[in-house]
Formats: sequence, structure tokens, C-alpha cells
Amino acid sequence: MKKRLLSGMRPTGPLHLGHLFGALENWVKLQEEYDCLFMVADWHALMSEYEHPEGIKKNTYEMIRDWVACGIDPKKSVIFQQSEVSQHLELAMVLSIITPLGWLERLPTYKEQLREIKGRDITTYGFLGYPVLQAADILVYKAHKVPVGEDQKSHLELTREIVRKFHFLYKKEIFPEPETLLTKVPRLLGLDNRKMSKSYDNYIALSDSPDEIRAKVVKMITDPKRIKLADKGHPDVCNVFSYCKVFADNEKITEVHKYCTGALKGCTECKKDLADIIIERLKDIRAKRTNLKDLDVDKLLKDGNKKAAEIAGETISKVKELVGLHK
Amino acid sequence: MKKRLLSGMRPTGPLHLGHLFGALENWVKLQEEYDCLFMVADWHALMSEYEHPEGIKKNTYEMIRDWVACGIDPKKSVIFQQSEVSQHLELAMVLSIITPLGWLERLPTYKEQLREIKGRDITTYGFLGYPVLQAADILVYKAHKVPVGEDQKSHLELTREIVRKFHFLYKKEIFPEPETLLTKVPRLLGLDNRKMSKSYDNYIALSDSPDEIRAKVVKMITDPKRIKLADKGHPDVCNVFSYCKVFADNEKITEVHKYCTGALKGCTECKKDLADIIIERLKDIRAKRTNLKDLDVDKLLKDGNKKAAEIAGETISKVKELVGLHK
Repeated sequence: MKKRLLSGMRPTGPLHLGHLFGALENWVKLQEEYDCLFMVADWHALMSEYEHPEGIKKNTYEMIRDWVACGIDPKKSVIFQQSEVSQHLELAMVLSIITPLGWLERLPTYKEQLREIKGRDITTYGFLGYPVLQAADILVYKAHKVPVGEDQKSHLELTREIVRKFHFLYKKEIFPEPETLLTKVPRLLGLDNRKMSKSYDNYIALSDSPDEIRAKVVKMITDPKRIKLADKGHPDVCNVFSYCKVFADNEKITEVHKYCTGALKGCTECKKDLADIIIERLKDIRAKRTNLKDLDVDKLLKDGNKKAAEIAGETISKVKELVGLHK
Repeated sequence: MKKRLLSGMRPTGPLHLGHLFGALENWVKLQEEYDCLFMVADWHALMSEYEHPEGIKKNTYEMIRDWVACGIDPKKSVIFQQSEVSQHLELAMVLSIITPLGWLERLPTYKEQLREIKGRDITTYGFLGYPVLQAADILVYKAHKVPVGEDQKSHLELTREIVRKFHFLYKKEIFPEPETLLTKVPRLLGLDNRKMSKSYDNYIALSDSPDEIRAKVVKMITDPKRIKLADKGHPDVCNVFSYCKVFADNEKITEVHKYCTGALKGCTECKKDLADIIIERLKDIRAKRTNLKDLDVDKLLKDGNKKAAEIAGETISKVKELVGLHK
């Protein structure tokens, strides 16, 4: 039997190339090897967006479009919405009750986020419990694997610690201790050479039109030492070239390298080529996502939520029995 | 239209005379004036009992027996179980997200409980959020009135503060600011003159048999200065007399006072009389509670949970819309 895997994204903005290469391409492959559940983490989104949550609903629609357009297949995987499967909260309540406050207060990610996230007040009760809800998200499906970034490793460790405490208290081992699944992915910087991020507005969205893509690529920073066309370029410090390495085929990469170092072509032309390659790469995704109507997304989520609730319901029934609640 | 009222008890042990006079007799009257919802607060019970939750299920059955036997009428009021109405947790999640940590950490009751509750580890994430769940319990039914003890007044204040923050953030006033309903009730000390409490084991349970009641009353402390039968007693310092004042009719009270201050009857005889009066008072309750089978309780809760979930479901639907979640 296939092992179960859970992953998710917060519907806080448009998905971009960073999501495509950092997660979605990986998810598409993982669908073959695992029983996958992909979650719209909208409670998690609300935790940071609660002061201005207007975008969550629209972002949910757009995100599902992107997922399906990129190859997440609702026939193979369960695509569902966290806030519509109430068992997440039931398990989160049980885990909250057994999780020492200090475990949460001492998490390095918590302190870091309090320090780094500006412009929103996240010193709330809910945000402190973020990792407990995450633990519930994973455990309610008894997932074995969770593909996470390095920064989330401490949350998985906490999840395993909570699992051990639950098993100790209620004398029955019902949860697997979930493991991280670290995958090497090509690293893509933002258009301005910083980390690609919604909040920096330095990304190419999967939903961008060809014109938008061209306008964005044209502004990318190339080799700062190549001022005149006759100057020889240094592709290794050029962000356009690093995009090229991700998107173009080997022949094209070699060609661009030769043109640049030999000062045979200018940056403008090079960017025009890159824009065309990206547009071509996103063409199918763009077509597919446009075809998916709101009603299709509604139906897809309704089906997925039902499947997710069935699995989660079994877990909760067992958990309530173990902690001695009447049901 | 009647205003709505919510109250509840934690299923942590047998109900006793303190519950009868401190709450249940009041609830029975409130049923006429308000649309009442009475909640088995089992999530709240689990918060303190999670290390040894074995009793919660049995206590739930026994508590419902006591409620109905004392006159809580499932035809007039909604009797339901917190953990089976998941909307409590959905609203609690939203409120958690908007409640500053400091509001909870600074609550005087929280610090007091950390200091006073011995023998259990309540420094958990869940326990810190106790008042947020309480706020959700009340608000998910848009209850106007909450009969609470003095010690819970600060929790109601917090609830009102959370309501104001919700209305401010989402620009729509959907919740009434719930008010406390303080009722004067006869104060009954425990058998050992301390506060009547399950943890002191100094109570007469509503489920005690006549023999158990006699055995308990016989051990009660009377006037410590009345050593010999011929000593005149001081009813005003006698706990047996204070029980007498609650249970007996005026004629009997006057008679006991006369016998005691005139040294005409001894304490043993007086206690025997009191035991008889208590047994008589609890006779109907005892008969009714015995008649209620486990299956009746199951059905009653199932019906009540359904009614509660209908009301709570409407609230949650509106709340999800306001905070912008897809549904």
C-alpha cells in the first residue's frame, strides 16, 4: 500500500514560478509514489491575513486553478480545503490540550516570525498555536511524509514530539511519526535578485499574460559590469542567465553563454528570448487554468473535502474514544 | 421573542447539592424566561482531566440524568454536548486568530489557576485558550445572558472585548455583547465546613442512596462548643442548622432552633432528622434519574446536538463569509 503524504499552501496571493519549481512540479511527481492530500491552508492564511482577509476566497479559486493546471490531478490526489474539514480543529483541540505552552514559545521559527513579520499584528493566541494546527493537519490523515522546506523542519519535530506525548498519555500508538521529505529543487531568485516573494512583488505569476511576462522580464537585472553592448558579460552573476538555466534546453543555454561572454548579443535581446521561453513554458498551464471555471473549482473542492472528511472522521472517532469523550 | 441564554457544566464528577442550589434550581426557573441552551462542557473538562480522562464519558451520562431529574426539560431547552457541535471549534479558531495573547496571559483567573490547581499540569496551550473557547461557546449561539459565578465575570468581560474587536475588524455587528446573570443562591458549605467541592470529597451527591446520605450527615460538624447533651447549642455556628435552613420548612426550622438552644434534643437526633429531610427532598430526583437509561441519554443528546448545530451552523456560515473564507 502506498504511504500517505500531506502538503498544502496558504491562499494568500497568486502562485508564481517559485511555487512551480519549489513545490508544484515536485507534487506532480509525488502523486505517483504516494497517496497525496493537498490542502488549501485557509485557516493558516487567516492567521496572518485576519486584518485584511478580503483576498482569501479569490486566492483559493486561483490557487486550485494553478494546481490543476500544473498537473495536480483530483483523480489521483485529494484536493481539499482545511476550513471545510472540521476534524482538523477537533484534533487540534485535543493536541492543544496536551501541548505544553513552552514547546510553542520556544520554537525558533516563532520568535523569528514575531521579529521579522512587519505590518501585521501576529502576537495573537491563534498564531502561537500555528504549529499545533499544522500537527493536526498532518496527523488527522495519519500522513507519513510531509514535503517541507528547511525552515519548517522544527515544526515537524514538534509534531513528532506531540505524537509521542499522545501515545504516552493514551497508551495506544495510532499515529505514524511523520517524516520530512526534503527535495532538491532549482532555486529561482525574484526578478530583483532578492528571494522571490509575493510581498516583494518580484515574481512572475503562473497567471501572468504574455505581455505581463515580457514587461517583467525586461526589467530584470543582468550583469552590472556589462554596461555597453561591447563589454563581455558574466553569465554566472546574471539572474537572466540563471532563469535561462531553469527554463531553456541545454543547447540554448550553451548558446546564450557563448553570446554573452563573447559580447555577441545584448542583454535586451537575451531577455526577449527568455520571455519567449517562459511564455512558451507557461502556455499550457495558462490555457488549462483559464478553462477551469469557478463552478468547477467549487465541485472539485466539495468532492475533495468529502474524501478528506471521511479519512479524518475515522481518526477523530478513534481519538475521541481514546481521550474518553462521549460520542 | 425570548432572549437566549447559555450555561453549562464540566462532566468532571457527580453533581451534588451545591450544583442543585447553586445552578440547577436556577436553570429550571430560567427555562421559562429564556431560550436556554445547556451545554455538557466536555472539551473544558478534558483541559483539566487530560491526564486521566477516564471519567468524562460516565460523568456525561450521570450529569444529564441529574439535569433532567432536577427539571431541565429537553422540550423547553436545548441540552447538548460541546464536543459534538464542531462549530464551537470553528468559531474558537476565528476568535483565537483575533485575540491578543496578552489578553489571555493577563487574565487574573488564569494566573490564579496556575497557582492554585495542584496535581495536574495545566501549563498547556489549550488551557491558556480556555476563555476563548468559552467566548465561542456563548457567541456561536449569540446568547444574550450567561449565568455565571463572580469568579467568571472577567471571562465574560473578555468575551465582550473579543466581540468588539470582531465587529471592528469585519465591520458588521453580528453578536450581542453577552451579559452576566448573577443570581442570589443559598450558600451551602461542604460536610466538613469547607467549600463544597468534588475534590474535597465533602458533598452529598444527587445520586447518593438514602444510606449514603445518612452516613454522610452523621459525620457533619455541629456546634463545637456543645459537648454534652445538656449544653445549650448555637445554631448559628452549626453547619447542620445551615443545611436545615435550606431544606426544612419554616416550622421545622423554628422547632430545631428551639430544641438546640434549649438543649432539648441532641445533635445525633437532629442529624437524623436532617438526613430524612434531605432524603425526602432528593427522592423524586433519585427516582427520575434512575429511570433515565443510557439509551435515553444518547437519544436526548443526539437531538440536542442537532438543534444546537443548526443554530451554530447559521452563525458560522455568516462568520466565514465575513472573514472571507470560501465555503
